[in-house]
Amino acid sequence: MAKLRAHNLAVSLDGFGSGAGQSLQTPFGHAGTRLMEWYFPTPTFQGMTGDRERQAVDPAHEPDDVFARRSLEGIGAEIMGAGKFGPPGWQDDPEWRGWWGEEPPFHSPVIVLTHRPRPALQVGETTFQFLDTTPEAALEAAFEAAGGLDVRLGGGPTTVREFLKRGLVDMLHVVQVPILLGRGAALWTGLEGLERDYDVESTTTPSGVTHIVFTRR
Amino acid sequence: MAKLRAHNLAVSLDGFGSGAGQSLQTPFGHAGTRLMEWYFPTPTFQGMTGDRERQAVDPAHEPDDVFARRSLEGIGAEIMGAGKFGPPGWQDDPEWRGWWGEEPPFHSPVIVLTHRPRPALQVGETTFQFLDTTPEAALEAAFEAAGGLDVRLGGGPTTVREFLKRGLVDMLHVVQVPILLGRGAALWTGLEGLERDYDVESTTTPSGVTHIVFTRR
Repeated sequence: MAKLRAHNLAVSLDGFGSGAGQSLQTPFGHAGTRLMEWYFPTPTFQGMTGDRERQAVDPAHEPDDVFARRSLEGIGAEIMGAGKFGPPGWQDDPEWRGWWGEEPPFHSPVIVLTHRPRPALQVGETTFQFLDTTPEAALEAAFEAAGGLDVRLGGGPTTVREFLKRGLVDMLHVVQVPILLGRGAALWTGLEGLERDYDVESTTTPSGVTHIVFTRR
Repeated sequence: MAKLRAHNLAVSLDGFGSGAGQSLQTPFGHAGTRLMEWYFPTPTFQGMTGDRERQAVDPAHEPDDVFARRSLEGIGAEIMGAGKFGPPGWQDDPEWRGWWGEEPPFHSPVIVLTHRPRPALQVGETTFQFLDTTPEAALEAAFEAAGGLDVRLGGGPTTVREFLKRGLVDMLHVVQVPILLGRGAALWTGLEGLERDYDVESTTTPSGVTHIVFTRR
């Protein structure tokens, strides 16, 4: 059966999946790039951004890539929150086409959850569909769009938390980065006892982060 | 130079060092024993409780013990918060002598921070001294009592957080347990940017926890 999976969701030790003060210039707010520094040097990210051939990949990043590349496997559609599609207020800009330029790395249908939907948008191989609906209905639409493959829950942290609360997530891969952000979007709030429904496995890598994988029992 | 060190401080993924609703019957509140299950089977804990000879220690717990036993090395005194010495309200009970029976595992002077001090108390080889003072003054008294050895900051989480905020902690060993408590005593609140003053190293062990060691630069 097709699954809903969240991958590469980085959180600080104090549980923030992005910083405070997000804007066009600072997509992760005051966190800057600190939550994603384990990710940028991985072959998976390098390949996504087209630098794969230009840049030799340091084998030190292979352990992180073992986790990172799973996010690309067997996915037929993505669901993301409004906060991932653009900076606060993107809904006021009819020209906004996402962060990813003219060849977004999704290569599949993407459902963007927003209270201010707009017509579907094709960018490169990716179709963005904007829905003002419940997590359950969004998931149903995404499974439909995925044609039997799994659906990726792309974030941000607030969206992932909402789906976790409703028991909709089959697999969650969190990357804990040993920094203290102090403020931002909290991932773990309101999820007491989450672990009871999952097998949980933790793995530390040489980059200093800890990969925590929740797999539904 | 003598250092202030905190060891074996277990926290949930969502950052709680103990559960809510602590009492005589439930010293960790609704967390029960879940934060300490990595610790109980270690030779260090077994030795403390006198079971060392009676109980064979499973070598699977050796990786956790590498961290656990450091808490006993080179320590000349301990500082603990009122919440570690007894359940809420212990100050109203003049007979309360701590959780640990007649041979507490400290074998050194212990300073208990409380707004309702009482005369010093000798239990076995341990002297408990009760002080209503600042973290800085408590630390000075503890270094004095430790006679050149290090001082252990024994917890609970609220006390450790207070000392961290004031920049008094030289080494912090946190054990992250992959459960979500949802409520309780938060360790990480108000510590934005803590990592800048420390080298941080994370290690996952077969018991499923992650040991995170902060060492002051």
